[in-house]
Amino acid sequence: MTDIQSCQSGSAQDRIDLGQARLLVKERIQSILHRSDRTVRDVMQHLAGSDGKAFRAYLLLAASADEAGLVPACAIDAAAAVELLHLATLVHDDILDDAPLRRGKASVHSLFGKKTAVLSGDYLFSLALTLIAGIAETHALRYSEFSRAIAQICMGELSQHRHNRDVDLSVFSYLRIISGKTAVLFALAMYAGSILGGHSETQSRRLSRFGFCIGMHFQLADDCLDYEVSTQTMKKQTAKDLAEGVVTLPLIFALAEKPALRDLVRGTDLDPMEIAAISKELVAAGYVGRARRVAQRYIDKARSILESVDGQSRRQLLGEILDSIAVRRY
Amino acid sequence: MTDIQSCQSGSAQDRIDLGQARLLVKERIQSILHRSDRTVRDVMQHLAGSDGKAFRAYLLLAASADEAGLVPACAIDAAAAVELLHLATLVHDDILDDAPLRRGKASVHSLFGKKTAVLSGDYLFSLALTLIAGIAETHALRYSEFSRAIAQICMGELSQHRHNRDVDLSVFSYLRIISGKTAVLFALAMYAGSILGGHSETQSRRLSRFGFCIGMHFQLADDCLDYEVSTQTMKKQTAKDLAEGVVTLPLIFALAEKPALRDLVRGTDLDPMEIAAISKELVAAGYVGRARRVAQRYIDKARSILESVDGQSRRQLLGEILDSIAVRRY
Repeated sequence: MTDIQSCQSGSAQDRIDLGQARLLVKERIQSILHRSDRTVRDVMQHLAGSDGKAFRAYLLLAASADEAGLVPACAIDAAAAVELLHLATLVHDDILDDAPLRRGKASVHSLFGKKTAVLSGDYLFSLALTLIAGIAETHALRYSEFSRAIAQICMGELSQHRHNRDVDLSVFSYLRIISGKTAVLFALAMYAGSILGGHSETQSRRLSRFGFCIGMHFQLADDCLDYEVSTQTMKKQTAKDLAEGVVTLPLIFALAEKPALRDLVRGTDLDPMEIAAISKELVAAGYVGRARRVAQRYIDKARSILESVDGQSRRQLLGEILDSIAVRRY
Repeated sequence: MTDIQSCQSGSAQDRIDLGQARLLVKERIQSILHRSDRTVRDVMQHLAGSDGKAFRAYLLLAASADEAGLVPACAIDAAAAVELLHLATLVHDDILDDAPLRRGKASVHSLFGKKTAVLSGDYLFSLALTLIAGIAETHALRYSEFSRAIAQICMGELSQHRHNRDVDLSVFSYLRIISGKTAVLFALAMYAGSILGGHSETQSRRLSRFGFCIGMHFQLADDCLDYEVSTQTMKKQTAKDLAEGVVTLPLIFALAEKPALRDLVRGTDLDPMEIAAISKELVAAGYVGRARRVAQRYIDKARSILESVDGQSRRQLLGEILDSIAVRRY
């Protein structure tokens, strides 16, 4: 296939410092938004201006790095695409649960209206697809990797919605839901970065599993944090999941041992006082702690995968990311 | 590129009769839905069960046909993808304008709730992408053709929404909106079919323009029908566009000559009696007729493009489609 290449075929000048690449991804997203439809531009300036850490984009860039810590230029577009995909799911997620705040700012939905929010999410989606099309047509990265991931994300979101207020949700089903809605995109980001960086299929599949574990931990930690922290530190309401009937691991553990909780969770009329009381109990009785230990297992698993990743600086870079994830408290 | 091929490289047995292919597309969609998530399956059975004519899928199949009227097997997936894309936009469109009926049936949104509708639309989108990925990776059809079309559809929808109740909407802007929201997918369907059928790039671009004209006529005719027909024959409320503030060509013509209409259209409180009166006036004063004549121009344009399409049976098949479109009254 003549016009299919990995980024490694470019000259040394095409490789960029990781930190610089991270800035270039933000610039790339800004420039794409700048060329968009006027309404979309307003919505997206608002989104891009939020203090998101573009963590998925960073994972992709890190996975694409070589031993000198340099990343191929083509990883910029791929990283921007992954971040746009994530933003698209955020915008649609906002609509669904009527969240007034997202990353501490007013949600697109509350600010611009439901119609604009649905369309903007679709449009962000299409921007990501356009970037992916360019990458899939000129680099050794199959488009189906993206389409499969997108389908799995949708399945995860749908499954979570179907199990809203489901007091019989199993641990297994819960893990399958969060693997779809969160971990799959982390896995894709690291796989795509690795392939674009010219790493082997075997090494790239390893990074995919590494990314998957990071994603599982990321979501599990988020679900624990929802019960642990106050409105101020999280920039959102405490136990938002409970308020909206989203059943997560700490609650699954508690439901198994405290049947009295079942009717409370099934109802739609929990008041803030009840939510606060249940949250406090889940933390005090150790259910959140148990969920934290499940999360820790994914860190351990990621660390063991890391041992078989080639390249000392590469292992070190990924190890540092893992360490930062493991201690994350925001 | 070793694994990239047009369907023409398949053996003669791989070619199917057009009518049979049309049935196979419906079966393909059903089988994809059958393997989906449970909630999605319910929603999609409901959608697939509606009496949609899968017209976009048919256009793709017709464009892929050879002189014997046979279509390549790979066109089935592409046709299913185009239809799924269309269904995805329908589901999201339903949410936006709170339409209680769609094709004479209750909308997904009114039946399953807003959250399920947003997610189901996203999921239908992802199913289409998965099919497209398979086609783009194994056939001579670039994925970017699809991603660009999807972006244009989103832009059309967003632009229409931004110009809601815009009494100064120009004819040019209106035509640009409907080209995005409708004609682009018709053009894509015919281009993709033609390429998969093994026809040349020049011939396929010609079919793309032919499809575009059909799409423009299709939407213009729909916008005229909205003023012309009653709830019973259309299976939806008369002048739904006017009720929702969607400014279409008959209204643009009327607004230019009847300043008194401006304040009525700007307001959000038009009652059914006022809507009926305005509709009647738009038809009686000939504004709908003028819009019909603009629609006719696209039929004429399509007919002139048809003259330079290769193959007598091919021209005849496409000519018959054009004739059926030109007299459509449903």
